[in-house]
Amino acid sequence: MPITVVGLDGDDTLWHNETRFKLTQGELRELLNRHVPDADVDRRLFEIEMKNLTVYGYGVKSFTLSMIETAIQLTEGRIPAADLEVILGWGKRMLMMPTELLDGVEPALRELSRRYDLLLITKGDLFDQESKLARSGLADLFLGVEIVSEKNVGSYRAILSRRGIKPDEFVMVGNSLRSDIVPVLELGARAVHIPYHVTWRHEQVAEESLPQSGWNRLEAIGDLSRLLAGF
Amino acid sequence: MPITVVGLDGDDTLWHNETRFKLTQGELRELLNRHVPDADVDRRLFEIEMKNLTVYGYGVKSFTLSMIETAIQLTEGRIPAADLEVILGWGKRMLMMPTELLDGVEPALRELSRRYDLLLITKGDLFDQESKLARSGLADLFLGVEIVSEKNVGSYRAILSRRGIKPDEFVMVGNSLRSDIVPVLELGARAVHIPYHVTWRHEQVAEESLPQSGWNRLEAIGDLSRLLAGF
Repeated sequence: MPITVVGLDGDDTLWHNETRFKLTQGELRELLNRHVPDADVDRRLFEIEMKNLTVYGYGVKSFTLSMIETAIQLTEGRIPAADLEVILGWGKRMLMMPTELLDGVEPALRELSRRYDLLLITKGDLFDQESKLARSGLADLFLGVEIVSEKNVGSYRAILSRRGIKPDEFVMVGNSLRSDIVPVLELGARAVHIPYHVTWRHEQVAEESLPQSGWNRLEAIGDLSRLLAGF
Repeated sequence: MPITVVGLDGDDTLWHNETRFKLTQGELRELLNRHVPDADVDRRLFEIEMKNLTVYGYGVKSFTLSMIETAIQLTEGRIPAADLEVILGWGKRMLMMPTELLDGVEPALRELSRRYDLLLITKGDLFDQESKLARSGLADLFLGVEIVSEKNVGSYRAILSRRGIKPDEFVMVGNSLRSDIVPVLELGARAVHIPYHVTWRHEQVAEESLPQSGWNRLEAIGDLSRLLAGF
C-alpha cells in the first residue's frame, strides 16, 4: 500500500533541541563545580531526571526543576538562592529561544506536503511544543498536530485509529530510535530514522535490538521525498 | 437541535484542584513570612505567575517554578536552599496526590454517558492532566480527551471541527466562566456553569459581561442530566 500519511517528530528532527539542553547542562556543570569541584554533575542530574520522569514528564520545565534539585542536593543545601535564580533564568531562556530549524527542513516539508498528509507527532510539554511550532513558521504545512506525553505503541495506535489511518499507509520520521522507530514498527507501520548528532541518553537504543526490516536510515531530511517515492 | 456531545472540564468540575493550590500557597505564605514577616506573598506570587504565563503555561510545574521565583525575590536571595527544596517537595506532592472526585461526579457521568458522547476538555499540563484522569477511574466514560494549552474560541472551534461536531449539538460544562462558558457561547454552542467554591483570580469574569442567554447555572453535576433532557 502506498504511503499517504507522513508523521514527523519535532525535536531534533525538524528543529534543534538536544544541543540546547546540553549547552545548559554544561553551564550547570560549571556553576556547580564552583561549589563542589569533584561532583559528577551530569550523572546526578540524569539520575534525578529519571527519578522525576514519572512525576514531571518531559520538557524544559521538568528539566529546570530537576536542575534545581540537583544543585541543592549536590551542594547539600549550601548553594545560594541567587545561583538557583540563575538556573531559573536558563530555563526561561530555553523556553523563549527562537525555534531554529535544521538544514533543509522547510523546502523538504513543503515538497512532502504536496504529496502526503503531514502530521507533527511530538512528545513532551504541550505548551512548549505548541509554542515552538508556532515560532517555527511550519504550522501551515501540517494537517494535524499530536502532542503526546509518551511515544509508545499505545499512543501511536490511538493517533492512527482516531484519524482513520491504516498502519501500512503510514510512515514515521524521526531522530529517536526509541520514540520514533521501535513502537511504530511494532504497529506494522514503516519508519525512517534521521539521526541527530546528539542523542539524550534516555532515548538511546542498542542497534542490535532493532528489527531488521521495515525501516530506513537517512542522513538528511532532504532525501526523504525520494525515499518515500520508492516505497 | 438536540445535544449529542457534552464537553466536561476536569479541574474543579470533576475533581478538586484549586483548593490544593490554595493549600500549598498558604504553606508558602507561612514559610516566607518567617523570613519576611511583612511581605504580601499572595500578591507577589500572582504577579509572578501572570508574568510567567506566556513562558510556562498553566499547571503544577509552572506553579512550582513561580513559587521558587517568588521565594527568592521576596527574600532578596536570602532564603536557604533547604527551604527551596521544601517548595520543590510541595510541587511533587501536588502532582502525586490521588485524584479526588467532587461529590456525585461518578454516577452523574455514568448516567450521561448512556445518552451523550462525553468529551473531557481540560487545559494545562498534558502530563499532569493525563495522569489525573488515569487516577480518576473515569477514563472509560469519555469518548475522547482534549488537553489544550488555553481554552479560547480558537481551541474550542478546532476541537469541534476536528471531531465533526456542530456547535448547536454541543454543550460545555465547567466551573470557569472565562474558560468554559464565555468562549463556548461565542461559538454558538451552549454552556452550563457549575461553580466551585474557590476560583483562581485569573479565571474570574464579571457577571455583567456575560451574555444573557445560551447558558445555565447549576449547583451540582447531579442536576445536569435533567437540565440537558429539557434542552
